[in-house]
Amino acid sequence: MESADELAFHPLKKIEIILPGEKQAFVRELLERSGCTGWTLFRDVAGQGHHGFHEGRLLWNDQASIVMFMAVGSEAVIRKVAAGLKPLFAKGSGVMFVSDTHVVRLEHFLSADGAD
Amino acid sequence: MESADELAFHPLKKIEIILPGEKQAFVRELLERSGCTGWTLFRDVAGQGHHGFHEGRLLWNDQASIVMFMAVGSEAVIRKVAAGLKPLFAKGSGVMFVSDTHVVRLEHFLSADGAD
Amino acid sequence: MESADELAFHPLKKIEIILPGEKQAFVRELLERSGCTGWTLFRDVAGQGHHGFHEGRLLWNDQASIVMFMAVGSEAVIRKVAAGLKPLFAKGSGVMFVSDTHVVRLEHFLSADGAD
Repeated sequence: MESADELAFHPLKKIEIILPGEKQAFVRELLERSGCTGWTLFRDVAGQGHHGFHEGRLLWNDQASIVMFMAVGSEAVIRKVAAGLKPLFAKGSGVMFVSDTHVVRLEHFLSADGAD
Repeated sequence: MESADELAFHPLKKIEIILPGEKQAFVRELLERSGCTGWTLFRDVAGQGHHGFHEGRLLWNDQASIVMFMAVGSEAVIRKVAAGLKPLFAKGSGVMFVSDTHVVRLEHFLSADGAD
Repeated sequence: MESADELAFHPLKKIEIILPGEKQAFVRELLERSGCTGWTLFRDVAGQGHHGFHEGRLLWNDQASIVMFMAVGSEAVIRKVAAGLKPLFAKGSGVMFVSDTHVVRLEHFLSADGAD
């Protein structure tokens, strides 16, 4: 077993995407098209608000079926995903959060097609 | 579609709050009162431990119904939420984690009442 | 109630571990053995890909029962957990992400046995 001291953590970006379940297929295709090699999906979460300062309205409520995608990739890949979501979210259909994270096996998060 | 290069990410704080499901209403009210404009709720998660060094006891176990709230806001708002939870959590009813994150649409995370 | 201004946030590491549900027991034992005093489990999530650049194959697919563990601890503890997972994940059974996070009550995340 490898020693804990020898582990290298490689920096990547994580995006969390929260949106109505009916938009799942769009996100899956966007992730793939952007070169994101994997994702995790949390189904049937609940959410409220994220109503905007400007809009003064709810974007969704407790009744809606909401899902959260969590995906990790290079900054270039995550930027592509975020850019692809922005038009959808401008209409009030979801939110996304981008954070720093680290992985041990970097090669699993680099796509083969040079997207990152 | 906006270019990925033109996207601006704005720093905010994310709080993850893990606690027994029966305390949900308290957290929802606290989030709202603190100026947090939205949250996501993960129901029926499982958890173990977070028993304290000092207490030497479990705070919850696998049988309890546990939920996780995820909320994002300005540091001032997230500090209000954390301060409101601290007395509850001092009695051993939950844990919270505060991390850095980023959003694309900052205006959706600033409350209209000047709370942040 | 404590003022939000007086709250101290202490830095710790968070690990998110996504893997087939059948490996749950291994992870629970590893977390405990590594001195991790608590964890949260998200059951029945879905995932795709994280297929490797080198392998060119899927590590799992939508049909598999997948879970995510979220655990927080000192960097030493989280490194032990990551080192213990690495051999399992080298065979293509999961992924892990390590991020910075903060807690208010540090004593709840330090194990009593000097593991950190």
